[in-house]
Amino acid sequence: MPAPILTLTTDFGLADHYVGVMKGVILGICPDAQIVDISHQVSPYAIGEGAFTIAQAYRYFPAGTVHVVVVDPGVGSSRRPIVVEAAGQLFVGPDNGVFGMIFAREKHEVRLIQNRQYFRELVSHTFHGRDIFAPVAAHLAAGVAPSLIGEILADYVRPPFANPRKRDARTWVGEILKVDRFGNVITNFLADDFPALEELTVGQAKARRLVSSYTEAADGELVVIGGSSGYLELSLNQGSAAEMIGCRAGDVCQVRV
Amino acid sequence: MPAPILTLTTDFGLADHYVGVMKGVILGICPDAQIVDISHQVSPYAIGEGAFTIAQAYRYFPAGTVHVVVVDPGVGSSRRPIVVEAAGQLFVGPDNGVFGMIFAREKHEVRLIQNRQYFRELVSHTFHGRDIFAPVAAHLAAGVAPSLIGEILADYVRPPFANPRKRDARTWVGEILKVDRFGNVITNFLADDFPALEELTVGQAKARRLVSSYTEAADGELVVIGGSSGYLELSLNQGSAAEMIGCRAGDVCQVRV
Amino acid sequence: MPAPILTLTTDFGLADHYVGVMKGVILGICPDAQIVDISHQVSPYAIGEGAFTIAQAYRYFPAGTVHVVVVDPGVGSSRRPIVVEAAGQLFVGPDNGVFGMIFAREKHEVRLIQNRQYFRELVSHTFHGRDIFAPVAAHLAAGVAPSLIGEILADYVRPPFANPRKRDARTWVGEILKVDRFGNVITNFLADDFPALEELTVGQAKARRLVSSYTEAADGELVVIGGSSGYLELSLNQGSAAEMIGCRAGDVCQVRV
Repeated sequence: MPAPILTLTTDFGLADHYVGVMKGVILGICPDAQIVDISHQVSPYAIGEGAFTIAQAYRYFPAGTVHVVVVDPGVGSSRRPIVVEAAGQLFVGPDNGVFGMIFAREKHEVRLIQNRQYFRELVSHTFHGRDIFAPVAAHLAAGVAPSLIGEILADYVRPPFANPRKRDARTWVGEILKVDRFGNVITNFLADDFPALEELTVGQAKARRLVSSYTEAADGELVVIGGSSGYLELSLNQGSAAEMIGCRAGDVCQVRV
Repeated sequence: MPAPILTLTTDFGLADHYVGVMKGVILGICPDAQIVDISHQVSPYAIGEGAFTIAQAYRYFPAGTVHVVVVDPGVGSSRRPIVVEAAGQLFVGPDNGVFGMIFAREKHEVRLIQNRQYFRELVSHTFHGRDIFAPVAAHLAAGVAPSLIGEILADYVRPPFANPRKRDARTWVGEILKVDRFGNVITNFLADDFPALEELTVGQAKARRLVSSYTEAADGELVVIGGSSGYLELSLNQGSAAEMIGCRAGDVCQVRV
Repeated sequence: MPAPILTLTTDFGLADHYVGVMKGVILGICPDAQIVDISHQVSPYAIGEGAFTIAQAYRYFPAGTVHVVVVDPGVGSSRRPIVVEAAGQLFVGPDNGVFGMIFAREKHEVRLIQNRQYFRELVSHTFHGRDIFAPVAAHLAAGVAPSLIGEILADYVRPPFANPRKRDARTWVGEILKVDRFGNVITNFLADDFPALEELTVGQAKARRLVSSYTEAADGELVVIGGSSGYLELSLNQGSAAEMIGCRAGDVCQVRV
């Protein structure tokens, strides 16, 4: 039987001991876990960015993978811890919307994390990643059924994620979900919805050509590409589109077809 | 039998090949090791920061874990390599004080690393992480007894770690151990020693309220919290206390009870 | 049988989901792979830096290791994907010179990656790390023979890597390959070729003393050291030589013997 896979997505960064501590807790419970880091550089407290990151990653993991997401500004408050079953995988984290892009896309069942038998003995008010989410996820990876963790929850947080809205017959208004390391500007326009377009604009910047690879772009030419994310992206060939445009996550963009 | 766990804590960063090279050496000796990164972003040459990092992490790992710590400004000089047994775990690194916070807390036995049979064949003067610490740790993880590595050492380095000192009946003077990614300011006042306090000050900044979670703090209110580190921490709710105060590791702080 | 080892070297950074996605794809095909990150912080599109990084790392891994390198500015263009057999190991990546320092050093055989049966079903034009390199490498790690991946390729890219050139009887001109996290300046002069020297210069900066460890250097003294890289390096004791000199990768340097 292959080792259970457990992924981690947090805003903890890699300089502190927090991520290592979570892994120690996991391996104490599920010694043969394959632990995979998705990202620990989600911007501090940025729930939307965490939601985008896990939504982009989970589909590439085998059935049965347990994903832990800790972007958790409300730790220690009354926000609830949850387990989500969706797409044949499990998701563990705070009930703050961080799984919202998965809810929008997959059939899912949400449970409250209640059973303290699967927590660390002492639970702090400041580090539930260590004291609740890591141990619960490790128990799930080791074979504990979600139904043993807690009851089904109906009123979990469903954030109003930005979907593009139609302005007129030919114009859609959307927003920038993410700028990646290469400066690609990832919008919330699904590539499949826009097989052709006249222009994509962000502020004063316009791209008029939809290409299929970066290398089709001329030097310094801003192009639109149906990116690996599944969304339309604004890109330069070997340059940062985001820097050229001067934009960032959350900015408005517009497609004319 | 579960795979042996081996952790790494260094100041090597993640951009260079050094950490990957250590892992290659380890896997050549102990192919089934579970290798866990605690942090590779200890500030270059910062022994105290390395000491804090491993001291915060080791307790969350299972018995038998082997921890390698390489923050080693004296590499190639006469500083000695050591193995430490403490808390049912093993620690491998330079004898420069980097295990000092563990010495202060746990019963321990220190051995000199002497037996060249467990080194790489050629030992450089500049990269003992690769040539001595990684291979010795991998052999220990694979089951070699510490007594085969070298003799017990009595005069190892015990750094004078900053303990708070009492100034008068109601005042203690301490120092900042660490600022984490979120800007939490971690002091060296043990939370258990200060169940209540009148104020905690750093320079001109004062916090008068001891809370149990970040979300109890009002907007922009500097609070004291018994942090996940076990020490008193100065924190803001969703903001950087360190930036607000303008302080960093090593700065003086003071508690009045 | 030990788990197959698979390493990753990319310019993807660690903030985005790209590296995690590659690991998900790999584990779906080869569930017991030991995945090791060499570096994901190669500068974007910097083929030479990627070539240096993998060339420094591979020798420390066991026979049979599969190394994936994705520094791939030409993704989606006509540049070809290749598998390289060298030194008892396998290398998977784009045919853009990123394996050039290995070609220069080891006997090798290069194959075109052709057999789409080992790709992901849908291949994007922008993320071959996910769609071609990760799955092909995972199949190789799981035991698929390179001969099943594609035919032998003769006209692969062999970049003209900077070798030092002799200027006169006593002078050699070379270049800086890399500046590491500590500010060590790694030249392309092989340490074994220069057991002694009169001076090593970069711009106005000169070092006249060849030492064997950092701690032999006086405070603020720039020294030359036969580094762990196998090349001559310019170093300070506990300081950044690169910052003192004001130099970076690609700059010219000179040895006088």
